[in-house]
Amino acid sequence: MNSQKEEIDRLEKQFSFIKEIDKEKKITRQTYISSGERMENDAEHAWHMAIMTLLLSEYANENIDILKTISMLLIHDLVEIDAGDTYAYDEAGKASQRQREEQAAERIFGLLPQDQGKKMRALWDEFEKGETAEAKFAHAMDNIQPVMLNAETDGKAWAERNIHLSQILKRNQATAEGSDTLWNYAYHHFIMPNVEKGRIKE
Amino acid sequence: MNSQKEEIDRLEKQFSFIKEIDKEKKITRQTYISSGERMENDAEHAWHMAIMTLLLSEYANENIDILKTISMLLIHDLVEIDAGDTYAYDEAGKASQRQREEQAAERIFGLLPQDQGKKMRALWDEFEKGETAEAKFAHAMDNIQPVMLNAETDGKAWAERNIHLSQILKRNQATAEGSDTLWNYAYHHFIMPNVEKGRIKE
Repeated sequence: MNSQKEEIDRLEKQFSFIKEIDKEKKITRQTYISSGERMENDAEHAWHMAIMTLLLSEYANENIDILKTISMLLIHDLVEIDAGDTYAYDEAGKASQRQREEQAAERIFGLLPQDQGKKMRALWDEFEKGETAEAKFAHAMDNIQPVMLNAETDGKAWAERNIHLSQILKRNQATAEGSDTLWNYAYHHFIMPNVEKGRIKE
Repeated sequence: MNSQKEEIDRLEKQFSFIKEIDKEKKITRQTYISSGERMENDAEHAWHMAIMTLLLSEYANENIDILKTISMLLIHDLVEIDAGDTYAYDEAGKASQRQREEQAAERIFGLLPQDQGKKMRALWDEFEKGETAEAKFAHAMDNIQPVMLNAETDGKAWAERNIHLSQILKRNQATAEGSDTLWNYAYHHFIMPNVEKGRIKE
């Protein structure tokens, strides 16, 4: 049993992290919400993928631990509070992304009590490496969610940025490793109709 | 093993729900984000509480199933897509809230395949009843998260709406049932300093 002072210290650290991550609500992504009126932010994106995981985990190629996968998705973009959002098709930004994000992880997860900071950092590292069944499924969610929203907004974000099918396929080269079924669905229902309509360049 | 047609039908239903709930990103609450520049929305609020649950479940009065609690929090405001956000201190709005939300639950969870719709509806009902350990803790999160943000913005939302301590205490009468520790912390660190500064009326 902790002393009362230790408990308060622990709570202070936990709440300093919880207050800090509020800033994720201000990190804007390059995907329109379904009404098309504005871009979504990282917090909204994470929430959306967490519910998708609850509903779609049945299509994972391998059995996944749902709580672990959701936890990963909830926290995987926190580093963008310091490092900013790097657009999937911004090759220059992607070159320095790794270092900027590592530093951010150090600072932000470092606000937590050590045991929890280590656990969150390990989850983030696992997502980044993309090797476990949970990380692979989380990446599938992270790739399919914006593709779905782009399709829902008549390909607006793709057309505005002149995106080519080859870029989307390169970005999604590992999506099927998380779920063949969901990648197949996204390809035929979200991507190809927009190639046919010319919203995605061939 | 389902036939391919059955699988596509199921995916269509799941994605029609997943697209529909994107509208939650447009449901504005009465709590400012920590920078004070705008109100947060329901999706951001749910994301924030899901991470809080990951970190703070150790303070629950009773052992809780973390995945179940997070699932509840992720989906508990979806009914507001149809029924709108009812402000905690809007007594007139609260009178008709129940019926509006029941109808919304019927429609929105009804978009899902029947098995998943039933499961989500049962989770929402459990949250609304507030009787299980998970529902009690989820309500503690739902009450403490805005209190924390209001304190972080120097009591802005409380002061603007002339909120009295008695209203906050009435709203929070069951918060300690989820976690004595967290309620005690919120009371002394978030609420009372704002009573002393006059941001909350006595």
